[in-house]
This record gives sequence, structure tokens and C-alpha cells, in this order.
Amino acid sequence: MNDTTTTSGPASDRVRLRRGAGRGDYDPTTIRSILDAGLIAHVGVVTDDGPVVVPMAYGHDGTDLFLHGARANAAFAAAIGSEVCVTVTIVDGLILARAPFHNSMRYRSVVVRGRGAEVTDEAARLQALRLVNDRVVETWDTGRAPNPTELRRTLVVSVPLAEASAKVRAGDPADEPDDLDSDHWAGAVPLVQRWGSLEPSADLRDGIAPPSAVDALVGRNPSDGPTSRPVR
Amino acid sequence: MNDTTTTSGPASDRVRLRRGAGRGDYDPTTIRSILDAGLIAHVGVVTDDGPVVVPMAYGHDGTDLFLHGARANAAFAAAIGSEVCVTVTIVDGLILARAPFHNSMRYRSVVVRGRGAEVTDEAARLQALRLVNDRVVETWDTGRAPNPTELRRTLVVSVPLAEASAKVRAGDPADEPDDLDSDHWAGAVPLVQRWGSLEPSADLRDGIAPPSAVDALVGRNPSDGPTSRPVR
Repeated sequence: MNDTTTTSGPASDRVRLRRGAGRGDYDPTTIRSILDAGLIAHVGVVTDDGPVVVPMAYGHDGTDLFLHGARANAAFAAAIGSEVCVTVTIVDGLILARAPFHNSMRYRSVVVRGRGAEVTDEAARLQALRLVNDRVVETWDTGRAPNPTELRRTLVVSVPLAEASAKVRAGDPADEPDDLDSDHWAGAVPLVQRWGSLEPSADLRDGIAPPSAVDALVGRNPSDGPTSRPVR
Repeated sequence: MNDTTTTSGPASDRVRLRRGAGRGDYDPTTIRSILDAGLIAHVGVVTDDGPVVVPMAYGHDGTDLFLHGARANAAFAAAIGSEVCVTVTIVDGLILARAPFHNSMRYRSVVVRGRGAEVTDEAARLQALRLVNDRVVETWDTGRAPNPTELRRTLVVSVPLAEASAKVRAGDPADEPDDLDSDHWAGAVPLVQRWGSLEPSADLRDGIAPPSAVDALVGRNPSDGPTSRPVR
């Protein structure tokens, strides 16, 4: 397999898209850009009595995806050494076709499948925690530094990005040719998302200004990511 | 168990919330209101090589949750007779604490666990498809009616809402008492979401106006649901 094949095809059969394969993308650049634009991941693990899907914060370094949680959380600890699936979806709008069966959404999604592994090296743990914390807005350096108890109680899990696929749906409805002459409306409704005005905590002391990274979020599209990144 | 216990406690041990149990809610009214406010579900199924989590449209009638997909989609067909998990999450904002370990999000989520079953009765199938289609905006009656081929190719799966739990996080950060006197900022950043202006399809014939339900979406918060429901 040469480089071109590696970047344009799926890394494994289980991440090859079957349905809507024409919208599939295995390019790591696309996958990373969607991971950069999302807000939460939905993490699937298998338990003795079936699958569980939990919304979680996440981070990534381009090679691995990182999750963090309380060490006391049994469902999360079960991800260590087990197959997991991490899905990040951004809804960009509604696609309304002439035939409801062709209704859809504008969206960008990434599905990562792989085995969870605990990150144990202290420097790697701190870096992973920073990546998870700072992915939506950078507050790691401006907040109070983590203390040993917090670090001890926190489990950091990595999932390789090696087996990932992206799916992007944009544009107009795809109606049946026979329906194009009908009198039914067809089009899209974009979902407009912006960070609103800051709401200082009720227990915040007077005279404390927000960090510039937080202040800069206001009015920004969440998909544009932290303010350290240029608006697209 | 009396009625009060039934509505305030979890229906089964596996949907009892462990982490953040104080934010848990098993009240069917809360669960339904979150299902009414969401846009997509993340559906977890177990395959031979691990869990898979897929974003999907959904509907519900207060008793069952409904999903639809192509009959040819093997992963979706695997939900029939198997345990699945359906998670719906709405992100309402960022919670930024003095200590990054207390950073969180304002969110509303529902986790439904249960066995998928195919809906085979034709009237029930049509009603389920209508519920999935019309949950975000009602276009079932204004669009072109489904034809026999579309109906034959579509699989409708129900999951009982009997085992469901909700989790709601709102308000301010919950910092450590020792941190309240620090100079670090704390507060929230709400996520503002609105349906934008309609974008007629490039292939739409001239002079065709959108249905009133679609037109009424513009400027509306997606969490407020279809325009047939009053804005909260």
C-alpha cells in the first residue's frame, strides 16, 4: 500500500463506510478538522448487559484521541484494554427534501474504533489532560493548577486514531428525478451556533476579569474552535 | 414499589446513575422533554469486533423510541433482538471553573437502554416513520407521500423507553471551597443556537414557497422543537 492509498482508503474493513459510502472520507486531515470542530464525543463501551453510550469531553494530538474521567467510574475504567467506539458529530443544518424519505441533515461526523489504553506516564498524562481541557477553550494555564489528589483520582484513556472514518453531508437535498418537477419545496435550514455573553459565576469575587481566551469566545462559532485558531 | 418510587427512581440498576448521581433524573416528563429538544441520537450497538456508535434521527411516542434506516444496513439490522443504547445530548454551554478539573458543560442528556425490536405492523410503521420525520419539523404531510419501494427498503426499530435516565447540568461551576477566594475567573458561556434563513435547493422550480412549518423554523431555537409546540 502506498501513501496515497493509505490516506484515501479506510485503515481497516470495520471502519469502511457502507451506507452513503460516497460521503465517506478517510483523509486524516478531514478527520482531524472534524475532531477540532466538535464539542463532545459519544463514547461507546460494551458492558455485561449491552452497550453504553456516554457523552464526554475529548482531546486529540493527531495520533491518539484522549478521554478523561474519574477513576471511580467503573464504566469508563472498562474502556481500558477493551474495544471502544468514539463518535463526534456536528449538526450543521436540516436538509428538507420533496420526499420526506430523503430528508437528512447537514453534518460532519467522525467514528473512531480502537482499544482503549490507560495513559500512565505522568508527562503524557498532563499533556493529554491539557489537550482535553484546552480543545474548546484554553484555560489550563490560566486556571488553578491541578493538585495531586485531583490527578490521582483521574483516569486518562487514549484511543488510537489509526482506525477512523469521517462522513460529511452538506449541500442540497438529493430528491428522486421524478420528484423534481413537483410542487413540493426543497432546501436546507442552516443551524447557526454562537457562544453567547459570558455569565460570571454567582460566587465570583468583584473585579475579576475573564482570561482573554474566554472573552474572545463571545460571538464565535463553536466549530471554529479555540480562539488561538484563526476563524475559517 | 409505589407510583412515587417508580417515577423518581431508576427503572433498573443498569440505568442508575453512579457518577454525578445528584444530577440524575428518572422522571418520564424530564426524559420526554429532553427527547423532544434533541436533534440527533447516538445509537450504540455491539458488533463482533466491538461497539459501534452511529448518529441517527429518532422519534418517540412517550413509550417507545423509534429509529429508521435502510434494511440493507447490516449494523442497523443488528439492533433487532439485541441490546442497544440510545443517547441524546444537548449542549447548552461551557462551565468554566477556577480549577480546570471542575470545567464542565451545561447539558441535558438521556440514556435509553433496551432491546431493539422491528416494527412490522404497517400502521405502526407509518406512525413511527411520521414521528421520526416530524420530530424536528413537520414535513410528513406536506411532502410527497412515501411509495411502496421506499417503505419496503426501510427498517423501523423500536426501543422501549422503560429503562431510561436523564442527566441535566445547568448553572454555575462547582469549585472547591478553598478556590473561591482566588483570583481566577469562573462562570459559564451559553451556546446560542438558532435556525438560520432558508436555503432553497438549487434545483427548486421558481415560485414554490416553503411549507409554513418550515418557514416558522427561522430564528427559532432548535431545542424548542417543531413550531407546532409553543416556545418555552
